[in-house]
This record gives sequence, C-alpha cells and structure tokens, in this order.
Amino acid sequence: MARNLKRIANMPSIRRMPLYLAELERLRVAGERWASTTRLAAERDIDPTQVRKDLALTGVVGQRKLGYPVEGAIRAIEEFLGWHRDREAFLVGAGHLGTALLGFQPRYRPGIRIVAAYDNDPARCGAELHGRPVRPLEDLVADARRLGIRVGIITTPDAAAQTVADRMVAGGVLAIWNFTSVALNVPDGVAVEYAGLRASLAMLSNRLQEREAAEAAAATEEVTP
Amino acid sequence: MARNLKRIANMPSIRRMPLYLAELERLRVAGERWASTTRLAAERDIDPTQVRKDLALTGVVGQRKLGYPVEGAIRAIEEFLGWHRDREAFLVGAGHLGTALLGFQPRYRPGIRIVAAYDNDPARCGAELHGRPVRPLEDLVADARRLGIRVGIITTPDAAAQTVADRMVAGGVLAIWNFTSVALNVPDGVAVEYAGLRASLAMLSNRLQEREAAEAAAATEEVTP
Repeated sequence: MARNLKRIANMPSIRRMPLYLAELERLRVAGERWASTTRLAAERDIDPTQVRKDLALTGVVGQRKLGYPVEGAIRAIEEFLGWHRDREAFLVGAGHLGTALLGFQPRYRPGIRIVAAYDNDPARCGAELHGRPVRPLEDLVADARRLGIRVGIITTPDAAAQTVADRMVAGGVLAIWNFTSVALNVPDGVAVEYAGLRASLAMLSNRLQEREAAEAAAATEEVTP
Repeated sequence: MARNLKRIANMPSIRRMPLYLAELERLRVAGERWASTTRLAAERDIDPTQVRKDLALTGVVGQRKLGYPVEGAIRAIEEFLGWHRDREAFLVGAGHLGTALLGFQPRYRPGIRIVAAYDNDPARCGAELHGRPVRPLEDLVADARRLGIRVGIITTPDAAAQTVADRMVAGGVLAIWNFTSVALNVPDGVAVEYAGLRASLAMLSNRLQEREAAEAAAATEEVTP
C-alpha cells in the first residue's frame, strides 16, 4: 500500500522524465558535458526545485556550479524508466492509429519495440506495416507465449478492447498501453496505462477557455474609455 | 501568477474529468438519475475524497445519500471543460496519425471538431480524409483568419512542428495540440498542450519494471525452500 501511494506521488515526475531526456540528448548532440538545472527547467516552465527532486529519483548526482553530467543523467533516467533495454511489444488494431504508432520513431530510445501487429480483419492480415507483419488475432496468445511478449498496445475500436486485453493477459502480457477509452478489467498483476488523449484534450479545452476569456477581457478594456 | 499556480494545481483534476464524464454517460444510458461518489471513484481507483474535490471545481452540488445528479454533473463538467460547444480546429500533417485523429469519434462530446487538414505534400492535397478536405499548407493562415479558427493540431514530423506552429499563430490560433516531441516557441497568449505520448510511455515502462520485479521476486520465493 505504502509503495502504491509512493508510486502515485511520483507519477508527475515520471511523466516529466522524457522532457529531461530530450533536452539532455540535445545537449549531448551539441557536445555539452554538463546540464544546468536551469537549462533542464527552462523548456517547459518547470520549477528548478522540481527538476532537482525529479532527478533525485533516478539517483543521478549533480555538481554545484556545473549541474548534471549529461551522459550520466541520460543513463540514470533510462535505467529508471527501464528504457536502457527495449521490450518487445505486440500491437492490436492495425488501423490508422496502429499504423501511426508502428511508424513512430522517437529520436530517443523508446523502451518499447513493436515486433508484430494483429488484426481481426483478414484483408489486413499477411501484409507488412513499416516492416512489421500483420497477423490474425487468433494467433496472438500462442505467439505471445512463444516469444515471451510482456507488452501489449491496444489501438482497436472501443468495442474490441476488453476481448483483446483478455487475450493479451492469456498470452502473458504484464503491461497494456490502452489507446481506447474503455476501462479495462485485468488481473492485479497487470498494469494498464491509458494513453490519455481525452485527458490531454480536456487540458487543451480548459486552457483555450482561459485564453478566450483573457482575449474577451482585453477587448472590453479597449472599448471602455 | 496566483492564477497560473492554481491552474497547475488543478491539472490532475482536469485530466480526470473525461473519466467522470464517461462513467456518467454510461449511467445516463442505463437510465440512472444519480451517481454515487463511490461509483465515480471505482473505475480507475480514484479516492472518493478526490472525486468530491474534483467535482467541486465544476460547481455541481451532490446530495447526501443520493450522490450527484447524472444530467447536472454531465452539464457542469462539459461547461467546465468548454465541451458544451464544439470548437472548430485545423489539423496539420495528414499522415497516419493525422488520419487517425480525423477518424477519432469519441462516444462523448469532444469539444473539438476538426474541419480541415493541411499538408505540404501535393500528393495528399485535394483529397478528403473522413469527409474533411486536405488543403495545401500555404493556405492555412488565410483560411484560419477567414474562418476564425482558434485551435490547431500538429501531427507532422518533428522537423516541421515549429514552422507549422508559427503559421497557426499567424492565423490567430489560441491553443495548439502538439503531437510532436518539439517544445514549441509561441507567444504568451497561446497555449500549447502536449499530447504526451512519450510521458504515457514513460509511465508504462516504469510500471512494467515494477511488475517484472514483483514477478521475479515471486519466482525466487517459489524456489527458495
């Protein structure tokens, strides 16, 4: 329980790690050896104190006046996230979103390597998408067991999500990246991470409302003498 | 400044609103008139106290023993998010991810309606994607001004992101939903919301590491007498 609470408290920190990684990678490419807290904080208006707290979770140690060692910080964050080694993943739902994810080539090590896609549409099966085979959904459980796949990605329509999750669990998957809006029922030992496009859209809408209100207020000031 | 801090403090609450909305919508379809806090909390292991705090932001008032009125809570959340009316949006980057977003039809009112897509590939322009026209990127600024578009969605490769953002800003866009990993430079009055696929992937990887560690620990226990 204590561990679970700690994990929840660390969630925003974990979500910020890819930002630090991207900035550190830019510094590495530029030949820099040290990254100041201010530099790491600047990109997305993060408080420098928060940067120090976040990086402390990874175990990397900063040096006064110099900041964090670029190589060391990259390694520490990658190990913290488990991105120092690629995990093989299956993706189910070879539509546009699935195809987009198969073609998603982040500049920085993503931790997850999709090795095959599955679909229940025979017209899609047998083809290749970005070099990965598309196979019939019926084969998923046996394939996952044989290859020891631990990560599943669901990009199907909502209606198919639970059935697909059940098959992934039967195949031994431990973590599911869920792009549907269905709250999946899975055993306790299996993690479901919601891609959260709707949550992100909620933030966008809320912020748009703020900007529009600010604009309307400014317009009123202009016409009021 | 105080306002900005308040917004940041409310971010996790805003991100949870679509979950409540989805559950409330299910209750409405089932003909229920009241939603208990426990019911709203159950779906994704949210603390009931947190549910009450979150919903308080929207102004909806619960009743002892009954919970929240389903219709009233839906209306309050939609108004809080600005989802009670659709905002027209332009999408730039008509590849697989862009096409997937154009076809994204949430069961619940999404607040954003994509009315046109833009691309700099002449082969893609002139076509229709899910009923929306694909137009040349050169036309974006003039179109956005003419139609009063306030929302832009960027699904281009990283390299094109800043140029596209500049054009959106020139066209009068106030909020940008950014699916690239580029930290965009925009004027203060413009909001950028990062779709956060990388942040979500970081959470997935971190949780997978936990599950694998738990599994390894369990396996050790089995073999230890």
